[in-house]
Amino acid sequence: MILTVTLNAALDLTYVVDALVPHRAHRVSTVVEKAGGKGLNVARVLSHLGEKTVATGLLGGRNGSRVAELLGDSPARMRTAFATIAGETRRTVVVVDGDATGFWEPGPVVTEAEWSSFVGHYTALLTISRVAVLSGSLPAGLPVDAYAVLVTAARAAGVRVVLDTSGPALAAALPAGPDLVKPNAEELAEVAPDADLSTVDGVLAAASALRGHGVGTVLASRGPEGLIALTPDGAFRAVPPHAVSGNPTGAGDACVAAIARAWRHRTPWPGALRDAVAASAAAVAAPQAGDLDTRTFLSLRHGVAVTEL
Amino acid sequence: MILTVTLNAALDLTYVVDALVPHRAHRVSTVVEKAGGKGLNVARVLSHLGEKTVATGLLGGRNGSRVAELLGDSPARMRTAFATIAGETRRTVVVVDGDATGFWEPGPVVTEAEWSSFVGHYTALLTISRVAVLSGSLPAGLPVDAYAVLVTAARAAGVRVVLDTSGPALAAALPAGPDLVKPNAEELAEVAPDADLSTVDGVLAAASALRGHGVGTVLASRGPEGLIALTPDGAFRAVPPHAVSGNPTGAGDACVAAIARAWRHRTPWPGALRDAVAASAAAVAAPQAGDLDTRTFLSLRHGVAVTEL
Repeated sequence: MILTVTLNAALDLTYVVDALVPHRAHRVSTVVEKAGGKGLNVARVLSHLGEKTVATGLLGGRNGSRVAELLGDSPARMRTAFATIAGETRRTVVVVDGDATGFWEPGPVVTEAEWSSFVGHYTALLTISRVAVLSGSLPAGLPVDAYAVLVTAARAAGVRVVLDTSGPALAAALPAGPDLVKPNAEELAEVAPDADLSTVDGVLAAASALRGHGVGTVLASRGPEGLIALTPDGAFRAVPPHAVSGNPTGAGDACVAAIARAWRHRTPWPGALRDAVAASAAAVAAPQAGDLDTRTFLSLRHGVAVTEL
Repeated sequence: MILTVTLNAALDLTYVVDALVPHRAHRVSTVVEKAGGKGLNVARVLSHLGEKTVATGLLGGRNGSRVAELLGDSPARMRTAFATIAGETRRTVVVVDGDATGFWEPGPVVTEAEWSSFVGHYTALLTISRVAVLSGSLPAGLPVDAYAVLVTAARAAGVRVVLDTSGPALAAALPAGPDLVKPNAEELAEVAPDADLSTVDGVLAAASALRGHGVGTVLASRGPEGLIALTPDGAFRAVPPHAVSGNPTGAGDACVAAIARAWRHRTPWPGALRDAVAASAAAVAAPQAGDLDTRTFLSLRHGVAVTEL
């Protein structure tokens, strides 16, 4: 079982309009409501790949109920076990007129008691999990080291843990020793300000600095050029056979999902990275974040070139 | 009792952002949720003016429940008696960065059975009403002559009826003989394409053409320059003592509310128009549609100049 955690889930609304013109009124031709949040995207990709998952996190209020209702349509292998909070789950509104314009509500404030209760709930779910994936931002009210608490609990339970977040939430969780982090370019630049991140050596230097904080593996995405991974078993580079065009939102979640799946099946690094690059590309080729074009995934995975650095 | 009807109510979301930039992501600093719809604005203004109202219309789904919950905070003299439909009440999102950018969801599709049931519900409410105010657009699924049905029922019950809508919904209701309509410039131009609507004579000509369809009174707003009314008792012009700056959204609803209140108290035309112009200006001076600055209302009403044309 793979456990995904979405502390700051959202009710995602997509509004299709002809053309967004500031300071005008727009008739929305199509409204799509979706259960949103990076951890839920990871769970959906895993479900597309045939894995059993439990998606947990925090949901509250009417928007939270709507998210739970939308998740009710998930396939049987994607179970949900969210904890309820008093605050209102945030909405995100994305206005699409060819390109996308996003509006993120600030989201709920989680109380101390709700957080303590969630940690208990999560710890119980760890007992049936092999891998945990912690994704996305922290809602207000949570301590900055909230992910450190969840990483520590996973390690204590013998569950491998992937952490995909950024900023202070990531920095505060590094000493707890997550098995894998996926920093963005900003974070890499922060730990290695002198490194040239356009080069493989520069990325490796930054990843090495991050690993020094106690992290198992550092995975650095290079967009259409694939991945660089600094792992306990060595450094690797994985490059897709060709570029895929589409929507890059959700590619990172698909990448993380593929790694979690590989760990669940004890696949060694070259194979895990091959899957991760193919899943990212297949997510780019799919219309919505959290979807995955399985044909693209299957056709690409054997063409991904993994080299040890 | 004054009955207000809002067939296409909405959950209004106001998102405050620093600056709206198309094709970027925006953090929303403040979210305001409000029960929206022109008929509800009319009811709120009436409530500010001390009148007892019943607000009816159609609500459905989670958004509808949220609207009902928000209406629960209304003062006791503003009662609500909405009928429930299966479809989901629409949301409107207005992004404010100094100026406003609006996104209107398409809204629910009302079934024939829901409409028949609502007509019965409305007819029952007419028995306790002196005046009915029908405001706003028609949701999908309703016949284009829906307002004609409601106007006919009001007249049969001896209830005076104000119709504030536009386009085909207005055109189809004219033969039913509403006691007052408040056409916009487009509608006036349509019935009298040769009239110069920048002149009082031009507006009177257009209003006269509209009255020919069976309407009691035609009220034409001239924005900061006040109102022109073609009534069964003659033609009038009402001009405010000075311009008021602020938010013009909701001024039309305040105007209609003042007329309904005047009818409820059998106030003759000059006084009714004085109130209507003062209420419009007081709504412009208030921060939110449906609010009314009562001090502005009281200070302006005696300064409004009403002349018979």
